[in-house]
Amino acid sequence: MAYCLAVMTALKDDKSEVILMARGRAISKAVDVAEVVRNQFISNLVIKDISIGTEQMETEEGGTRNISNIAILMVKE
Amino acid sequence: MAYCLAVMTALKDDKSEVILMARGRAISKAVDVAEVVRNQFISNLVIKDISIGTEQMETEEGGTRNISNIAILMVKE
Repeated sequence: MAYCLAVMTALKDDKSEVILMARGRAISKAVDVAEVVRNQFISNLVIKDISIGTEQMETEEGGTRNISNIAILMVKE
Repeated sequence: MAYCLAVMTALKDDKSEVILMARGRAISKAVDVAEVVRNQFISNLVIKDISIGTEQMETEEGGTRNISNIAILMVKE
């Protein structure tokens, strides 16, 4: 819910846009936030683009790990 | 990894396409599967479209709950 408030604050001006980004298990939370804001709070919010990708993160042991990410571009029309 | 194999089996023909769908916490797993298949196994796989949505599920107590979903359309080119 804190994330929803952050998104709504960022979207308070007309024609503003927000890119919601998340990595790993937080991806499903980002989708939840986008859907809750769009369905319950800002009806003229449009999801313009969704992209996914992979980035390499260093583990504590010094190795690398691939981790998925998502970017959700939302625009108030 | 079982999901990666299922996706690769479905994509074994030329120009075949797959829609990966997931709900709730499995959304991040679906993104992982898409990324692993694309980056490690099928290099000519293109993510054509990603959409997100909300559906209502009935709870065991008889009420309803909103749950987010994702659909990832992948095409072998």
